[in-house]
Amino acid sequence: MSHDLTRVAILGASGYAGGELVRLIDQHPLMELVHIGAHSKAGQTLGSVHPNLGGGDRILGTLAPSEVPDVDVVFLALPHGASAAPAMALSERTVMLVDLGSDFRISDPARYAAAYGSQHPAPEQLGNWVYGLAELNRRNLVGAQRIAVPGCYPTSALLALGPLVTEGGIDTAGIIVDALSGVSGAGRSVKAELQFGAMSDSAHAYNLIHHRHRPEIEQGIEMVGGVDPIVTFTPHLVPMHRGILSTAYARTGLTEGELHTILLDAYTDAPFVNVIEEPPATRWVVGSNNALIAVKVDERAGCAVIVSAIDNLLKGAAGQAVQCVNIALGWDETTGLPMTGAMP
Amino acid sequence: MSHDLTRVAILGASGYAGGELVRLIDQHPLMELVHIGAHSKAGQTLGSVHPNLGGGDRILGTLAPSEVPDVDVVFLALPHGASAAPAMALSERTVMLVDLGSDFRISDPARYAAAYGSQHPAPEQLGNWVYGLAELNRRNLVGAQRIAVPGCYPTSALLALGPLVTEGGIDTAGIIVDALSGVSGAGRSVKAELQFGAMSDSAHAYNLIHHRHRPEIEQGIEMVGGVDPIVTFTPHLVPMHRGILSTAYARTGLTEGELHTILLDAYTDAPFVNVIEEPPATRWVVGSNNALIAVKVDERAGCAVIVSAIDNLLKGAAGQAVQCVNIALGWDETTGLPMTGAMP
Amino acid sequence: MSHDLTRVAILGASGYAGGELVRLIDQHPLMELVHIGAHSKAGQTLGSVHPNLGGGDRILGTLAPSEVPDVDVVFLALPHGASAAPAMALSERTVMLVDLGSDFRISDPARYAAAYGSQHPAPEQLGNWVYGLAELNRRNLVGAQRIAVPGCYPTSALLALGPLVTEGGIDTAGIIVDALSGVSGAGRSVKAELQFGAMSDSAHAYNLIHHRHRPEIEQGIEMVGGVDPIVTFTPHLVPMHRGILSTAYARTGLTEGELHTILLDAYTDAPFVNVIEEPPATRWVVGSNNALIAVKVDERAGCAVIVSAIDNLLKGAAGQAVQCVNIALGWDETTGLPMTGAMP
Amino acid sequence: MSHDLTRVAILGASGYAGGELVRLIDQHPLMELVHIGAHSKAGQTLGSVHPNLGGGDRILGTLAPSEVPDVDVVFLALPHGASAAPAMALSERTVMLVDLGSDFRISDPARYAAAYGSQHPAPEQLGNWVYGLAELNRRNLVGAQRIAVPGCYPTSALLALGPLVTEGGIDTAGIIVDALSGVSGAGRSVKAELQFGAMSDSAHAYNLIHHRHRPEIEQGIEMVGGVDPIVTFTPHLVPMHRGILSTAYARTGLTEGELHTILLDAYTDAPFVNVIEEPPATRWVVGSNNALIAVKVDERAGCAVIVSAIDNLLKGAAGQAVQCVNIALGWDETTGLPMTGAMP
Repeated sequence: MSHDLTRVAILGASGYAGGELVRLIDQHPLMELVHIGAHSKAGQTLGSVHPNLGGGDRILGTLAPSEVPDVDVVFLALPHGASAAPAMALSERTVMLVDLGSDFRISDPARYAAAYGSQHPAPEQLGNWVYGLAELNRRNLVGAQRIAVPGCYPTSALLALGPLVTEGGIDTAGIIVDALSGVSGAGRSVKAELQFGAMSDSAHAYNLIHHRHRPEIEQGIEMVGGVDPIVTFTPHLVPMHRGILSTAYARTGLTEGELHTILLDAYTDAPFVNVIEEPPATRWVVGSNNALIAVKVDERAGCAVIVSAIDNLLKGAAGQAVQCVNIALGWDETTGLPMTGAMP
Repeated sequence: MSHDLTRVAILGASGYAGGELVRLIDQHPLMELVHIGAHSKAGQTLGSVHPNLGGGDRILGTLAPSEVPDVDVVFLALPHGASAAPAMALSERTVMLVDLGSDFRISDPARYAAAYGSQHPAPEQLGNWVYGLAELNRRNLVGAQRIAVPGCYPTSALLALGPLVTEGGIDTAGIIVDALSGVSGAGRSVKAELQFGAMSDSAHAYNLIHHRHRPEIEQGIEMVGGVDPIVTFTPHLVPMHRGILSTAYARTGLTEGELHTILLDAYTDAPFVNVIEEPPATRWVVGSNNALIAVKVDERAGCAVIVSAIDNLLKGAAGQAVQCVNIALGWDETTGLPMTGAMP
Repeated sequence: MSHDLTRVAILGASGYAGGELVRLIDQHPLMELVHIGAHSKAGQTLGSVHPNLGGGDRILGTLAPSEVPDVDVVFLALPHGASAAPAMALSERTVMLVDLGSDFRISDPARYAAAYGSQHPAPEQLGNWVYGLAELNRRNLVGAQRIAVPGCYPTSALLALGPLVTEGGIDTAGIIVDALSGVSGAGRSVKAELQFGAMSDSAHAYNLIHHRHRPEIEQGIEMVGGVDPIVTFTPHLVPMHRGILSTAYARTGLTEGELHTILLDAYTDAPFVNVIEEPPATRWVVGSNNALIAVKVDERAGCAVIVSAIDNLLKGAAGQAVQCVNIALGWDETTGLPMTGAMP
Repeated sequence: MSHDLTRVAILGASGYAGGELVRLIDQHPLMELVHIGAHSKAGQTLGSVHPNLGGGDRILGTLAPSEVPDVDVVFLALPHGASAAPAMALSERTVMLVDLGSDFRISDPARYAAAYGSQHPAPEQLGNWVYGLAELNRRNLVGAQRIAVPGCYPTSALLALGPLVTEGGIDTAGIIVDALSGVSGAGRSVKAELQFGAMSDSAHAYNLIHHRHRPEIEQGIEMVGGVDPIVTFTPHLVPMHRGILSTAYARTGLTEGELHTILLDAYTDAPFVNVIEEPPATRWVVGSNNALIAVKVDERAGCAVIVSAIDNLLKGAAGQAVQCVNIALGWDETTGLPMTGAMP
């Protein structure tokens, strides 16, 4: 391969997001994947862990930073709490770090502690990371060397709410985010409640009130200019592989047309976000890095209802991570990213 | 069969709710099904229309009231607008009428017109029908001869909200009902958007703001003592056969424990409603006439979050219809009704 | 409850088949469930293990035979190899034993060893057990005290093949059974390959050539009069909760009409088996104890194609177990068993 | 766009295969899509018909050949019987025609009549078309101007059987092909039996004995050197979007190792076909143009069991069509085609 390609490593290549990263980077024209590391699957072939991926003969290494060769970018796709240590070790090199996990998303140590129930291991690092919600933080991503990729629910919710907050179209107190996630959002670890027999043909809500993405959503609302946000967040699992559908409710004094225009204007130059008239289905975006957003207003109640759809593993994880790197390195934002999904 | 059995007819036996009625009445120890009528399927065998039902040799008659033999109870399981005419014709007999459709649910003609976009064909009849939400209107059902069985979404929402409204535990303005329905909730008519290829592995919201179940929910809140309710209602279709999961949001000044106690107390004697600690999955009730309810409070937001699960074709339609007849005729409320679901 | 009810215990009540047994026996008019035992779930409530079942306050005991009170019937719904010990211990009492597991299905020790790869722990017992394929072995079930309930695949295959073998309609060599099972057929143990993310929207074949149900199918063919059967058996898992669809191929010299008549005649008096013209869908039987069978003949190839559908947890396990007890005790064969399924 | 790109038209862009063609060609580096035609959807935007596809502002034209501009390649993705007329009209130009339908797959008029129940409208044309099963007919595809892309089932079956036939590893009489298809295999037309409520969580066999892909499979066996093939073919629909899993049975005198080696050798240079040790799941190939094949032998029965998996819309339709054009035009066979699928 050409020595001009940006050299990339992935730590955590055996999970769902890690597998998507491999797939995206393998077909990215400007990147070259030179190292893949995993925890319990170290030593196995990529093909045995992800039978959908070609190149089955590549061997997964370990997560040890010392094993990571000289690369330009390291993606960390690790469980919560597992990114901080390798990130700190790798910080001694000149390398771009892109964390798909939750360790560096919250910039305020107190909010971090409230969200995760423990002190951050390296609070002094938190301010160095750029929150990688591409459309709402693009300016800060240019040239960034430390990128914290948002969670899937916050991506979905903030794309819907962000411009409306910035333009003062909705109140920031009393926001409700009611979201539906495909089962892959729960990750790849083997659990009784994620068995086909438990999950197929069934829907349930979980982690009410205290889901750790709630503080992240509130931080995002502040980031785009909102003051004192209070969000009630209810995630649900529904029987589909991928996709997040967020239905957000906020008090508004504007009309449907006005809110629609705010969103349209905000995303005019965003290649992956489309603002549409009627609410989307998740299958319209699954397989792509796209987001679809629609807004309605219940005038009797003075309530805006904003619906957004993304693929949780792409725009909600691996796709957005690559999009951030594209922006950080000054490439076309869409390079190597799928803009059409697969249906049926 | 014994001449002591209550004789029953079903008009609209070819749809999903009608099929469930056949199944329930066939196994009901005090009822005898003597007539089944259908529209376009008239003349076909029951088995060809519902291959899951035994007794495939029974022939579907027409919907003509004149074809209905001398019976004690007629269930109407017809599309919106199709119940009024046969109901009026059958009213000339001494017969209990139980409408699973929407024609007689709304007692106020103005609200009916707002919900359905047209004037009711027989507004003077509206006051004669008892709203068949068994747990919240049991007293009026005893001895009733005209029963309007609630819609599936209102059943789910009102079981969750009703006692909290009655006891003043939540505000009646600014209520949000965000509900997930299995695909059978959309009925059995053949539509492109209900094809497996469109609906499987996908979720979407539909009929935002203006779904016709919204006025019915508001009427129900008034029925249990609420004043000037304003409800924002968002239904979603998710890829499962049956089940409704409603997540309702309302402002509250009470604690989680207080709200939980109100619900527990309200349903102490309700055999089909269980108030539980953690939110249910729809599969826990599918196949039964049960409802499961849990309440959480977001104290920062002053917001109660109440989650309820039912089977839309049973507690949300055919099961509740039979439950109402059991109550109306003074039988044990649970007679002939499934109290356990099937998993997986 | 009445002292006239037949008293029943279940060992292995926490699995899928065990849960279905609880559900069936709770609604059986002549049985009373007085003991439920489990392995790792001992001490938990039934409701926490099977949230679909009412009676959540019943506590699961252990599997210890000494804990089983004085009962008339013990159902064993345990993993392979786990039934022999409690069966032997309980044999010292006067009690009917009904094993839903595989320990006593194979009557010949050599065939057992070939199927399961180990010697049977109590080969002298094997001859005492009656193979509980109700329709094909009804005579031997009357009065039986030891019943080995067939596997789900053998039930499905033998109902399709049995009468054709008995009447000489097909060759017993070169039979192929190609079967599709819902995921519950793989049991309730938690495995990576049964996660929703692995199994939904996907199909695969497994245990080719050497599945242990193959010798059981061959034994069944001998039981109904076949000589030197040779069966090639390919099970598949497809993404549905329940249901087995077996497509069996056998050489024939008869016409489609002749084979259809043989099947019709054989099942004239079988309340749970219907022979139909066109091949069934599994949903037509799921939730019931029914089997549906259709036969076609490829005349160019001299090949009969027989398709049968059952619910693997009912006719393929718990339903057939109850049916066998009904027959053994001289009750109506259908007592307490569902004859209609639920659709959709 | 560059004038060097091969200019492409698609007639039948509104169906599932047509939508996949649009997706593939849009991202193909050497092709440019300049015309899309449809039947009943003519005049609508591509985005309204395929909401997963970007470029929603492109308008679907009609199917009229006169509307097709000057192009190098026309893909026909039309229902059976609808390709012959436009193909004949377009034959007057210098253009490559690639038919994804069934009109030109069968080269013998008598076999065509047997398969489709009517005479071919232009039997003299049949011999001009090359059967586009890329791996088994690559040599004839080079430079071809008329390509008939195989059906999805024949592709799946022939990739499994072809090399074994050519090398004499299996008998060509008495072959059984038992295949499972995702629901998209039934096309996009709206039918009651394809509704989510009918198809989800259910499996069934259909068109036994007389499915029109049977003669096509037999023709393919002859094409690779088999004599007097007799195939019994049973297609099933199972509840998944995409994917075909074919399980084929044939008499053999060889060992598993010998058959495995024949397949390995045959596909050494085939970038899209992998021969593996254990049978694949359909999800391992869905989203890619890949095929996975495994063979087992039942030595007692002298029966080879070969399992193959493909994505019916890619390797079984649109992907193979593009692969054929790549070969015909002398490009790298894999150009623009996905070699990894998406999981979960």
